[in-house]
Amino acid sequence: MAERTEISSLGEFGLIDHLTKNIELKNASTIVGIGDDAAVIDHFGKQTVITTDLLIEGVHFDLAYTPLKHLGYKSVVANLSDVYAMNATPTHIVLSIGISNRFSIEALDEFYEGIYAACEKYDIDLIGGDTSSSQKGFIISITAIGEVAPDKFVKRNTAKKGDLICCSGDLGAAYLGLVFLEREKKIFLENPNVKPDLEGEKYVIGRILKPEARKDIIDFFSDAEITPTSMMDISDGLSSEILHICKQSELGCILYEDKIPIAEETRKAAFKFELDPTACALSGGEDYELLFTIAQADHEKLVLNEQISVIGYMTEPENGKKIITKGGNTFDITAQGWNAFASK
Amino acid sequence: MAERTEISSLGEFGLIDHLTKNIELKNASTIVGIGDDAAVIDHFGKQTVITTDLLIEGVHFDLAYTPLKHLGYKSVVANLSDVYAMNATPTHIVLSIGISNRFSIEALDEFYEGIYAACEKYDIDLIGGDTSSSQKGFIISITAIGEVAPDKFVKRNTAKKGDLICCSGDLGAAYLGLVFLEREKKIFLENPNVKPDLEGEKYVIGRILKPEARKDIIDFFSDAEITPTSMMDISDGLSSEILHICKQSELGCILYEDKIPIAEETRKAAFKFELDPTACALSGGEDYELLFTIAQADHEKLVLNEQISVIGYMTEPENGKKIITKGGNTFDITAQGWNAFASK
Repeated sequence: MAERTEISSLGEFGLIDHLTKNIELKNASTIVGIGDDAAVIDHFGKQTVITTDLLIEGVHFDLAYTPLKHLGYKSVVANLSDVYAMNATPTHIVLSIGISNRFSIEALDEFYEGIYAACEKYDIDLIGGDTSSSQKGFIISITAIGEVAPDKFVKRNTAKKGDLICCSGDLGAAYLGLVFLEREKKIFLENPNVKPDLEGEKYVIGRILKPEARKDIIDFFSDAEITPTSMMDISDGLSSEILHICKQSELGCILYEDKIPIAEETRKAAFKFELDPTACALSGGEDYELLFTIAQADHEKLVLNEQISVIGYMTEPENGKKIITKGGNTFDITAQGWNAFASK
Repeated sequence: MAERTEISSLGEFGLIDHLTKNIELKNASTIVGIGDDAAVIDHFGKQTVITTDLLIEGVHFDLAYTPLKHLGYKSVVANLSDVYAMNATPTHIVLSIGISNRFSIEALDEFYEGIYAACEKYDIDLIGGDTSSSQKGFIISITAIGEVAPDKFVKRNTAKKGDLICCSGDLGAAYLGLVFLEREKKIFLENPNVKPDLEGEKYVIGRILKPEARKDIIDFFSDAEITPTSMMDISDGLSSEILHICKQSELGCILYEDKIPIAEETRKAAFKFELDPTACALSGGEDYELLFTIAQADHEKLVLNEQISVIGYMTEPENGKKIITKGGNTFDITAQGWNAFASK
């Protein structure tokens, strides 16, 4: 049987010491880390990028099918993704948690294993935080800090008419992973003796439980000397995100359904659940891919990168926000694209 | 009757627009504020200071007697206090909230009024955040970012033997304010028709509900050319904080009970509740005063500042952490000083 150590046996400061004792700082810019009123970082003339996320058990994650280590990893990745979406390099995080006494120290250790694994993979220093009890559920707040050469950051409101709309990787898989896990949970609750059959769905389940942030794409931009004209990460689904870029850049857009990258595993999973794969890509969230626009002149610089798909272009605002389907029909893109498409 | 608008009537992005539409950015260093994946700040060669706090309803605050505007104000102040405690100047915050549908938009507006009032008073820009639903209670996460000239920050682990121990303002009042509010809540729950009599306790109640961070002390250090040898803010009580400085600086200390600054209103409130005012100062939290050490040679630079009290000095570690009472007795300082002293 797994060991269980009560958090109360350590006390708040003992707990913080326990959770942070193995931190190795990786960034030369980390002047003061955990253990003081605040951390100090030195960016040597670069600009500082800040983003924050609040994750609440029962709202953002379900511990019935989310291993704590994966939760820790994903919590970090979701924040880093926002920093990469500014064309910046994340360097530091601060992490606050609120925990009820339902959690043991062993459980927290698992969560922190995931936090540290993500920090290791992306060269991030954990430099501070706050540890608190909660009356109910697990609460996670992460703030990520990054750096960018002055004026190299990329916003959402700077796309230009005629720019090509691109996205990294493939879309819709995380949503199908979630649909799958929710179904397994329901089956388990009805009959705990039925063993889940996850074998065929490894890809989509991996995408929801252990996503990665697209550091490689930011590195590619730097190597290929591409500066996107606008960018954001895809956490709420392609429809919602392209509408943000259109609204903030005061433009319209055209997307082509047949250009939207969808993995073969995602298509198969979608058909199993009788869902439209395109609808999953448009409205399913948590893919953590990058959506960005580039000047047409930059097209040839990325044409050989298989991780990037050109999926449409920016238009005059009066043309609206449209998607052209495989069958040649044109539809308005809506933030509730899921329902719009599912009801076809 | 006050108006009540459901949060669901706006949607998440509508809500963010509503809450942030009146932001005026005050810091030239704010390059990108709310509305993108992340914010961007430029510190022009200064070092960046970061601190974060997680506040959970029922654990850190009780809405039975905490007006939402005060809660907003105090949430910001508590974070800024940590930045000042590094001898740094706070410049920016990011704010995440988790809210259940028990809150109306009018209630949130009140909370943000307090947030903006604190930002206004301390010249802080709110540059980002996250808005989420919560299943239960109100959750607040704030990360504060500040700046400091390279290597001018002050840590906790750098006090030297013989340094004078100083604190700002007066101590123990916030704790007595809390005791008072808890008593009034109990009376109200027993008999809702009894009107609370808060008149005589304005000072201590003000200290718990609307504390201030000691920007003035940091400004004074700059003007008087004093760099404390160590510093932290007093959020958990004087005992707990001086023990941190002793532990991290690997030293002992002597405090003098009769030098600990306690306001006359605090003494009166303590006697009303049959509490020892010194115990309240040692173990009551949330005063948000600064505790710091200075070299003896700097003593004359601060002797005329009535907001600063010299309360003891740092000793060799083998001398332990002691307090000398008014009666001339010597006691060990413990983090549970409250109980130790109350049982005398």
